[in-house]
Amino acid sequence: MTVRIDSFDTAGPGDTAGLTDRLGALDPGRVRRLALLVKTEGNADVNDFSRELAAWRAEEAVLAHGGASLLERSVFLHSTGAEGAMTPFGYLIADLTDDADGTDGAVGTDATEGGGTLALGVGRSRIVRGGEIGSQQHVALAEQAVTDAVADAGLTPDQVALAIVKTPLVGHDEPTRVTSAEAKAVGALGAALALGEVERSRVVSGAFGRDLTLFSRRSMVFSSSEAARVEVLVLGNRPGAGGDLRIASGLLDDVLDAPGIRRVLAAAGAGLTADGTVADPGRVAALLVKAGHRHDGTLRGARTTVLTSHIDPDKHIRTVMSGVAGSVLGTGRMFISANSVHQAHDGGGLCVAVVRAAGAAGTGETA
Amino acid sequence: MTVRIDSFDTAGPGDTAGLTDRLGALDPGRVRRLALLVKTEGNADVNDFSRELAAWRAEEAVLAHGGASLLERSVFLHSTGAEGAMTPFGYLIADLTDDADGTDGAVGTDATEGGGTLALGVGRSRIVRGGEIGSQQHVALAEQAVTDAVADAGLTPDQVALAIVKTPLVGHDEPTRVTSAEAKAVGALGAALALGEVERSRVVSGAFGRDLTLFSRRSMVFSSSEAARVEVLVLGNRPGAGGDLRIASGLLDDVLDAPGIRRVLAAAGAGLTADGTVADPGRVAALLVKAGHRHDGTLRGARTTVLTSHIDPDKHIRTVMSGVAGSVLGTGRMFISANSVHQAHDGGGLCVAVVRAAGAAGTGETA
Amino acid sequence: MTVRIDSFDTAGPGDTAGLTDRLGALDPGRVRRLALLVKTEGNADVNDFSRELAAWRAEEAVLAHGGASLLERSVFLHSTGAEGAMTPFGYLIADLTDDADGTDGAVGTDATEGGGTLALGVGRSRIVRGGEIGSQQHVALAEQAVTDAVADAGLTPDQVALAIVKTPLVGHDEPTRVTSAEAKAVGALGAALALGEVERSRVVSGAFGRDLTLFSRRSMVFSSSEAARVEVLVLGNRPGAGGDLRIASGLLDDVLDAPGIRRVLAAAGAGLTADGTVADPGRVAALLVKAGHRHDGTLRGARTTVLTSHIDPDKHIRTVMSGVAGSVLGTGRMFISANSVHQAHDGGGLCVAVVRAAGAAGTGETA
Amino acid sequence: MTVRIDSFDTAGPGDTAGLTDRLGALDPGRVRRLALLVKTEGNADVNDFSRELAAWRAEEAVLAHGGASLLERSVFLHSTGAEGAMTPFGYLIADLTDDADGTDGAVGTDATEGGGTLALGVGRSRIVRGGEIGSQQHVALAEQAVTDAVADAGLTPDQVALAIVKTPLVGHDEPTRVTSAEAKAVGALGAALALGEVERSRVVSGAFGRDLTLFSRRSMVFSSSEAARVEVLVLGNRPGAGGDLRIASGLLDDVLDAPGIRRVLAAAGAGLTADGTVADPGRVAALLVKAGHRHDGTLRGARTTVLTSHIDPDKHIRTVMSGVAGSVLGTGRMFISANSVHQAHDGGGLCVAVVRAAGAAGTGETA
Repeated sequence: MTVRIDSFDTAGPGDTAGLTDRLGALDPGRVRRLALLVKTEGNADVNDFSRELAAWRAEEAVLAHGGASLLERSVFLHSTGAEGAMTPFGYLIADLTDDADGTDGAVGTDATEGGGTLALGVGRSRIVRGGEIGSQQHVALAEQAVTDAVADAGLTPDQVALAIVKTPLVGHDEPTRVTSAEAKAVGALGAALALGEVERSRVVSGAFGRDLTLFSRRSMVFSSSEAARVEVLVLGNRPGAGGDLRIASGLLDDVLDAPGIRRVLAAAGAGLTADGTVADPGRVAALLVKAGHRHDGTLRGARTTVLTSHIDPDKHIRTVMSGVAGSVLGTGRMFISANSVHQAHDGGGLCVAVVRAAGAAGTGETA
Repeated sequence: MTVRIDSFDTAGPGDTAGLTDRLGALDPGRVRRLALLVKTEGNADVNDFSRELAAWRAEEAVLAHGGASLLERSVFLHSTGAEGAMTPFGYLIADLTDDADGTDGAVGTDATEGGGTLALGVGRSRIVRGGEIGSQQHVALAEQAVTDAVADAGLTPDQVALAIVKTPLVGHDEPTRVTSAEAKAVGALGAALALGEVERSRVVSGAFGRDLTLFSRRSMVFSSSEAARVEVLVLGNRPGAGGDLRIASGLLDDVLDAPGIRRVLAAAGAGLTADGTVADPGRVAALLVKAGHRHDGTLRGARTTVLTSHIDPDKHIRTVMSGVAGSVLGTGRMFISANSVHQAHDGGGLCVAVVRAAGAAGTGETA
Repeated sequence: MTVRIDSFDTAGPGDTAGLTDRLGALDPGRVRRLALLVKTEGNADVNDFSRELAAWRAEEAVLAHGGASLLERSVFLHSTGAEGAMTPFGYLIADLTDDADGTDGAVGTDATEGGGTLALGVGRSRIVRGGEIGSQQHVALAEQAVTDAVADAGLTPDQVALAIVKTPLVGHDEPTRVTSAEAKAVGALGAALALGEVERSRVVSGAFGRDLTLFSRRSMVFSSSEAARVEVLVLGNRPGAGGDLRIASGLLDDVLDAPGIRRVLAAAGAGLTADGTVADPGRVAALLVKAGHRHDGTLRGARTTVLTSHIDPDKHIRTVMSGVAGSVLGTGRMFISANSVHQAHDGGGLCVAVVRAAGAAGTGETA
Repeated sequence: MTVRIDSFDTAGPGDTAGLTDRLGALDPGRVRRLALLVKTEGNADVNDFSRELAAWRAEEAVLAHGGASLLERSVFLHSTGAEGAMTPFGYLIADLTDDADGTDGAVGTDATEGGGTLALGVGRSRIVRGGEIGSQQHVALAEQAVTDAVADAGLTPDQVALAIVKTPLVGHDEPTRVTSAEAKAVGALGAALALGEVERSRVVSGAFGRDLTLFSRRSMVFSSSEAARVEVLVLGNRPGAGGDLRIASGLLDDVLDAPGIRRVLAAAGAGLTADGTVADPGRVAALLVKAGHRHDGTLRGARTTVLTSHIDPDKHIRTVMSGVAGSVLGTGRMFISANSVHQAHDGGGLCVAVVRAAGAAGTGETA
């Protein structure tokens, strides 16, 4: 199996021309799993409907390309907020079976040395019931979905570089609603348990959204008011996997931690210039960042306005990070999201890079 | 004469505790010129009154410290918008005469070699009349005010590193209003003429806000609906000037140009680590950045949302730059403003750094 | 022919349950024309995609009910901004042929006396080309589309109570963009010419958006960045038309003109209590209001903040009017839009009410 | 003693020209109490500094007019949010002693019949300590301050038409912060106890912000992050009081309750036209409205967007009410504030009108 990552720009949330074009390069019969990570450009407030529009249109595009069975093998993550230096765009990630000619997934390249190449797995919980939202049971469902995704990817928990967890914010059958921090807590701590990152005894309801010393180190969580199940996408390097992509991830100290971003890019195989920028941006197949702010609103000991302005803290943080990461990567095609609660230490973040082996032929617009 | 720069944090726009403390270190009788550059934290929209509040309180503080004569020798620039990684704070810049003991302004340090140390001058036009706003006559008034400030600083036009120009947006005696771009054009092009940066024949009304190839390279312009006159603060290195501060400035390619920021910091004498960050942030007495966006909203060839979101482009840009510059400087105490029209090429910016000579004793919170 | 108006609430812009239910009551074969007027609830800024989402889903619903031929006979108007007392909802207006049993369209009721009952017509221009946007030619296309719609409704220009004009803001083939005021000018003045409301000699480009004494008295204009053609819906009472609905319209002095709203409601047949509220809200089949603000931001001689706040003037005005009209009508199911430029005197507005004859059986949620 | 109410417009939050002019008409020696109620026009978010600016400037103006002793006898209420049809303005309310000629305070006019004329009292608690904020002790402090104000006005609790309660949101000595709803609960329930409106046994902490059936009927509460004490202004009609002003108050069903506003205006002596508007607006010395929204966001059974938009619910509600009350009063000079929690039933509001007796000579801009 070979994982392939393509990117495509959008002219608006309802634009699927780029997606359709990238899908066209994939033989539906060879697609084991399809993942779509898209940044949409609505106002990122409660009355932002860009995500719903984009998801709707993407579903149509996937249906048109591969029918209901391809749609069933696909996971979608539409994330609002493409501020600042970011470009509204998407990553189309496909896990392809090897029974075709395999020109884009040759085994045995340099990239596979020292830890394998990119593998992908997905997991999905049963429907989370109203009374369960934000509870220990919700954590258990998230943990199982991550465990399932790790197995689906053929990885061990240690090999996982990133678990993307999409988790419900509202009960399916009754309108229990928890805070976004609480919903993120259950997703992140479920992942942390599955990945062996935290002690089980510390994962108690009273800690959700409160004990900020309790966190996963390799997950990004997205809460969704539409989702009914926990959905998980896991990425990691698997020895023997095909393709020429390598992934690396690492925590960021805070939103200004450009050196941390460089370290992750280098670990995934990217070269860096003396200027501190990526030497060959075309080899970076994906850059994903989850960024956060400290609960007290300070940054490096100084007060900021992220908690005391008319603009939501997450918008401040995404926009800042678009500059920090963009100035390293040299482009605005990056998947940045905010609110790192329980996904890093207080104010920290997570950076994930996927880089194509040097000399390999690239795909997608980043090439 | 010795220029001294102190910085102070604010707990809010009306907070003058830090300013009063820094003023306390200055003997009013020795202050030849005083300049106050403050970032305030209102919403940076038309109904932001933080600037008015802060200016009012600062005026009281300066009056209390040195009376009307000190106020008369002072120039104030309150700039709204302290988003993202920025800390609401101010720079207090004092040009001190040398008849005191001079411990903070010794002549002959290493810093004075190779081009002198920081010198400061101010200039002020007569009141700009309604019919003149945005016109060639307005440009001429700005040019003269810059020329006066250069002379006041004892600099030649070539030695100027930065001309800060505050210019009226509305006529004093009749309500002529021009766009912010047009008001900035007259300020920037007046400075460009005074500094010998553009051909006089190209500075025509039809070009204001339109011919983006016409720009100053060492000025930052602020338009103000309260100002009645063009007010100018000029900074540059003067051979033989006292003190241990050196200034450097340079254009930035775009809002992601972290390498350009590093080059300016290095030129002013700051050391940089292999990580791309400032080695000794305590020596950076001031960092000022004017950042911009391209007129078509693209960045490095990709679409952004800065022109197509509910958030003002200038807020996007300031916030992005707070990340880019903050990740180099390692702190949010930076004076960042947006809209670089006629102050750089389309989408470009200007970076200015003032750095204390290595080994010198610092002042202010940045020490 | 009989015009029928149903209303339906939406749970969100993508919700078509109510629309589908109301469509279910209509035999597609009997629908001569279908008009859909919907208020959506996005942020009403440039990054509001609720309109696109709602239009997309509505199109699917109409297609599912009556196929492409029904869609071809339909006109859609999705209008963003459902603030304040407004409920996000829609009006489904159907012009039905009389070859069925006609129980909801009996001819000869009291309602037909003194001027007929509600009739409906539509018109559509050819594609407006880039160079034409905002020009006299654009006005001519709008005028012809209104004239066509009047004919389609079987009305004389004098009998028209309301012409809804949807007009492009951007050229189809080249990116000419005009201001919203200029786009509205061509729509409103085209309607004014078709309805005989203004002198042809006064309709010149220089007046668009500027000469505020030049206005239609019976049109509401909506500019759209998606529309390629001018599309028109005309409503009026036609002697001999079927059904039990009567329409009336009238200008409002300003956004506080509750008495003007009462007069229009009364003219359409609604009763009013001594309290100044509608006696039988169930008989009001539709209330549409276009509201505006004076170009100088004053209201009844006093300054307001509509031009000097971070909130768009149109949002202020829609929200104010939702209170004024809602306090008369007693519900938030009203179609209110803002920016009345060239559709009323400076600061004025237009109110349109459709009322069911007393004693008639109502339909829709307003009943 | 005679109460006099003047109004003045502001050109901005820092403008005290109107206030200074109205103060000029008052002999400081005759002023027993001074109250200033001002609407400011900042963005009404956490980064709105218009209130601080306006309060600062007003304090200077009062000091300049009557020195520290007049300031000590004054209470200020600056309230942000002057959206929609509202004019940024202020009421200056003075309680004057009768040892002057008394031409504006003759006893025995028609206005005094049937219940007296307007009287005013103030009360102030000790500093509320951090641990007390939002607690029963805070309620007790509020109750005592209201009781003191009632006594200061020479009224019985039954005669009180309005208690304005300004209450701290944050502890003075330690940063305990409660929600705005909880802070409002203690202010409103303290007033309700002082005015005999609720059973003491029901006023328990668990009910604050939660038991919406528990409410005062004659108080308006404002929480302030600057205030350290509970401050109270009480208004009511006192038999034998001087002047020609009468006050009336009454609950409003909801934000659309224009009939309720008319009833209060009529009860205070205003005439109403058949159109439902005030016959002689010049006689209305003051109109104050506290408006609210239901906790579930519905209005008259229909969904609204007040809880599900990017705009704060209070801005929606103030703007709606500016239309409802403005369409009755005929002007935007009204003191409207939002969030009626514990000050009316869920979604209800309070309207207060002060009307000058017919035939009396008016003062202020409303005349």
